[in-house]
Amino acid sequence: MLEKIVKPNDIKKIPEERLPELAEEIREFLIRSLSCTGGHLASNLGVVELTIALHRVYNLPKDKIIWDVGHQAYTHKILTGRKEQFDGLRKEGGISGFPRREESACDSFDTGHSSTSISAGLGYVKARELKNKKYSVVSVIGDGALTGGLAYEAMNNAAELKTNFVIVLNDNEMSISKNVGGISDYLGGLRTSSAYTGFKMGVSSALEKIPGIGPELVNALRKTKSSIKQMVIPGMLFENMGLTYLGPVNGHNIRQLTKVLAEAKRFEGPVLVHVVTEKGRGYAPAMRHPARFHGTSAFEIETGLPVKRSNPTYTDIFSTVMRKMGDREPDVVAVTASMSEGTGLKRFANMFPRRFFDVGIAEGHAVTFAAGLALGGLIPVFAVYSSFLQRGYDQLLHDVCMQKLHVIFAIDRAGLVGSDGKTHQGCFDLSYLSMMPDMTIMAPKNKWELSDMMKFAVHCQGPVALRYPRGEAYTGLEEFRAPIEAGKAEVIREGSQIALLAVGNMVKIAEEVADRLQERGVSATLVNMRFVKPFDRDLLKKLAENHPVFVTMEENVESGGFGQQVLAFCGEAGLDVSVCIAAVPDCFIGHGSVDWQRKQTGLDADSILERIDKLRERQENRK
Amino acid sequence: MLEKIVKPNDIKKIPEERLPELAEEIREFLIRSLSCTGGHLASNLGVVELTIALHRVYNLPKDKIIWDVGHQAYTHKILTGRKEQFDGLRKEGGISGFPRREESACDSFDTGHSSTSISAGLGYVKARELKNKKYSVVSVIGDGALTGGLAYEAMNNAAELKTNFVIVLNDNEMSISKNVGGISDYLGGLRTSSAYTGFKMGVSSALEKIPGIGPELVNALRKTKSSIKQMVIPGMLFENMGLTYLGPVNGHNIRQLTKVLAEAKRFEGPVLVHVVTEKGRGYAPAMRHPARFHGTSAFEIETGLPVKRSNPTYTDIFSTVMRKMGDREPDVVAVTASMSEGTGLKRFANMFPRRFFDVGIAEGHAVTFAAGLALGGLIPVFAVYSSFLQRGYDQLLHDVCMQKLHVIFAIDRAGLVGSDGKTHQGCFDLSYLSMMPDMTIMAPKNKWELSDMMKFAVHCQGPVALRYPRGEAYTGLEEFRAPIEAGKAEVIREGSQIALLAVGNMVKIAEEVADRLQERGVSATLVNMRFVKPFDRDLLKKLAENHPVFVTMEENVESGGFGQQVLAFCGEAGLDVSVCIAAVPDCFIGHGSVDWQRKQTGLDADSILERIDKLRERQENRK
Repeated sequence: MLEKIVKPNDIKKIPEERLPELAEEIREFLIRSLSCTGGHLASNLGVVELTIALHRVYNLPKDKIIWDVGHQAYTHKILTGRKEQFDGLRKEGGISGFPRREESACDSFDTGHSSTSISAGLGYVKARELKNKKYSVVSVIGDGALTGGLAYEAMNNAAELKTNFVIVLNDNEMSISKNVGGISDYLGGLRTSSAYTGFKMGVSSALEKIPGIGPELVNALRKTKSSIKQMVIPGMLFENMGLTYLGPVNGHNIRQLTKVLAEAKRFEGPVLVHVVTEKGRGYAPAMRHPARFHGTSAFEIETGLPVKRSNPTYTDIFSTVMRKMGDREPDVVAVTASMSEGTGLKRFANMFPRRFFDVGIAEGHAVTFAAGLALGGLIPVFAVYSSFLQRGYDQLLHDVCMQKLHVIFAIDRAGLVGSDGKTHQGCFDLSYLSMMPDMTIMAPKNKWELSDMMKFAVHCQGPVALRYPRGEAYTGLEEFRAPIEAGKAEVIREGSQIALLAVGNMVKIAEEVADRLQERGVSATLVNMRFVKPFDRDLLKKLAENHPVFVTMEENVESGGFGQQVLAFCGEAGLDVSVCIAAVPDCFIGHGSVDWQRKQTGLDADSILERIDKLRERQENRK
Repeated sequence: MLEKIVKPNDIKKIPEERLPELAEEIREFLIRSLSCTGGHLASNLGVVELTIALHRVYNLPKDKIIWDVGHQAYTHKILTGRKEQFDGLRKEGGISGFPRREESACDSFDTGHSSTSISAGLGYVKARELKNKKYSVVSVIGDGALTGGLAYEAMNNAAELKTNFVIVLNDNEMSISKNVGGISDYLGGLRTSSAYTGFKMGVSSALEKIPGIGPELVNALRKTKSSIKQMVIPGMLFENMGLTYLGPVNGHNIRQLTKVLAEAKRFEGPVLVHVVTEKGRGYAPAMRHPARFHGTSAFEIETGLPVKRSNPTYTDIFSTVMRKMGDREPDVVAVTASMSEGTGLKRFANMFPRRFFDVGIAEGHAVTFAAGLALGGLIPVFAVYSSFLQRGYDQLLHDVCMQKLHVIFAIDRAGLVGSDGKTHQGCFDLSYLSMMPDMTIMAPKNKWELSDMMKFAVHCQGPVALRYPRGEAYTGLEEFRAPIEAGKAEVIREGSQIALLAVGNMVKIAEEVADRLQERGVSATLVNMRFVKPFDRDLLKKLAENHPVFVTMEENVESGGFGQQVLAFCGEAGLDVSVCIAAVPDCFIGHGSVDWQRKQTGLDADSILERIDKLRERQENRK
């Protein structure tokens, strides 16, 4: 059956009664394919029928389907002719794990971060109205993403619409972990309501079948402000916000889904279709452990176990530190924005449930909430991925730094992130944090230093950020474990000529660079900066005495990053050195392996050596 | 009466029946005082009774009142002993126009930007629980601020609370302009509901008086999920989100307010008290024009007219350009986040209502919504204050730049902003925009250039930011009006020795610097950069030939700003120049006049000349 789907809308040629069979084939394909490549499994297994129904009801690429977050768009990719490319999923040169307009005309909005789909969809709708075009716009958003304020801002704004706009709420009771908050509780009530258990379909259609209640009466009822409405129409929270609510509907019944979606398409104004799905559906290990199968590496199909176990990651180290700190430091509390597994806070949460706060996919709130916690006398640690903390930029600046509050930011997935690609690169944090007054920024060179820095951070004052990369923690340089001192760097090797000033995981690359320089008879000093802000100005002054060349190394964009700060300092202090900045260039870095990305960005040892050679050549010529 | 209030809690000594009289005195004081100093008048006149009631019910500084946005905290400042300092309001060395912890122990959270109060309050509440303290926490938030997603994220998170947390919704139907969106419509329904017109007080107390309904029944009713609840308890939107709703209550009746607040204080769990107030109450001109009296300069009390009319501001110029562009460019649409007056979009809105979108106080949504508009074939112009665009940092990067969408950001209040102080300084935009790939950034030197740049921006590709300062537009240099060319700077004066590279309004300062250098016999070239990204690298190379000193000048933080980009380029290109960066230093800049702030930050001509002298001295010494 699946072989017949080679281009968009081929799905429409399949007889309706055979669609469940197709859904099973897609599931098998996804499980088989992802067991080799890894990827987002659980969320994709949950939306197979929903995606089929959407592709039956809508015409792509004319109509616009916007996948919130976008990691659940695999079936959409299969149905739009990209099945054959799944063996290259998330690899360099292969297809992305997210919708990408450059990949297909059927991808109408690039996503990656949460809660953008309603805003983007509303933009499309308003443009359609003004340009007198005819197409449909559908935003598909999860109940997790609905905890993000951006989604709410957009719903509030969509209420005034007079033309059709369909929001499909894909409700699987999960963010990556179990979903949290008032809205989630409310959805829980709806899911178990009589509307769902009784009618099992679009409520207004159900109402219409009651003798004496026609579609006109249902519509009239929606428009009243009477309390009778409240009794017969579920989803009042959304209705009160100005959206028409349809549902809840069984998200694994293609016939019902198609019916409700077709009904939603005809509405004038904004409609929310509440679809109940099961994350990981059809694959027992994913249903048992939806969080683990949210994003997975290659796994054995029979057992669901990963093909190879990795050595401890920085996340694992952080997890252990937090657990221990929980015992020793009663004021330390942990905050996550729906990422307790990903950030390694799960163990802390289990041991200290009262001191653990999952605030939903709400990074902005997490930051300001942490500010309140700090003022209340606690020491909050907000563990968050670098690219998601971008959502809290203003709150960091305005609520934490401006009040010099002691909040610790444990920033995971900083630097190059590999297969998630451009939306998830953690390459901006050193820049956006460096510009914030009173911020302290650290980056560890290896696993022991992450642990030492966390302990140091707890006894700091003011805001402290600690950034570390995705993946295995470096276990080299174990012997370098001098106590962390505020603003002090650590000299790993002493040389003359060239000073390598490396940030965090670039210390490892710097070792390679130093070795290869030594082979050529060039003596290099290797510095583990430890602190990006404030960085060790005294050391730099001293180094300038016998090192005519400084090479800064960071997995962060050049603009506003560590290298530029060093350069500015050298200028100000009148140091007579040439500074070579190794940093991420001014472009977005696509998906692939981290090694490949490092080469792409010129952050591998070869590229850095090449640049050093050029600089030295130029210096020679000038003499 | 007012003279008796000299310290916190003095208000509790005033007999209840005389409080309305006190309220009138406070109003008179505010009108008289602000007519001289200027400030936020309308919002403060609206909350006089509410503030009195809060100070009667709560004990400061033990209890925490968090004022969302914070411009409405004047009565709070008066009641906590700061009345005598009102003649220094918003001036250098005087009190701030916002709550400031450094000013008073009764200010429990520094605010300025919208929608932070519930997050911060929730942080306090959680800390109180964990530390076993006893104090109350109240967040006072306007219906405008409630359109911000941050408030929603916090409410969603607060739903799970088991201990008391009071959210006072100060509903005046306004943001700065008329409030918008589904939530606003919903509140409108509540305001006219029978609960308000009939009971005029906390609804549950009212219910309790109905024979047969005691407090137990009311509480039981709240806890059910039955539809009967929907019929008798208003505020279901909030109740559905997990908050207990009390109200609506007349926000100008101190007795009723006190009663409801006292009731709210006793609840276990999160309570929302819906208070209906009138912006500008008690001063006819402010009631007629609440938006104009949102933030006002000094005015004549009798007429409400400003004491002096200013010359056209950059905002005025932008307003005119947009109006004209509306005629010529049918695809141009305008977006504001509740700032149609402040950004000058009002006239465009009146002339092209279908092409104007006020999305509420929701900058993140505004940016992603604009991305959708662009994909739908329109050319959106998002007019926004620099410091508020910080709320859209991730959306700029992730939704606009990553897709290279043609969205125009008209960034007002960029650079030093004067009396609003540190929360409103627009000093980060050049840095946070420069790090975004594919972003074009411009800044005009004078009023004509703003107009030319806007026209240029419409025909650009990709994201374009145009930043200009608060206040009067510069009318000098009218004769310099060469056509805008992508990435090209404009040479205003040719010299040798020193090149002054000025961004936007710093061109005016650079003229002064150049004049004074000339008096001393030093020849300076004056460049209006026009483009901060990409800046004119060819020109810089050429200038390096006969200018050993470059001086960059920008009203933006040094970290990641224009100067650091120039410095990095000079290093990379091997230009043999010394670069002196004049930029905002690494600290927050308090309230005061822009001239004073410019001196504080070393961006006045004197300070810049001093730095040039030092640099030249150092160069001399080296020779």
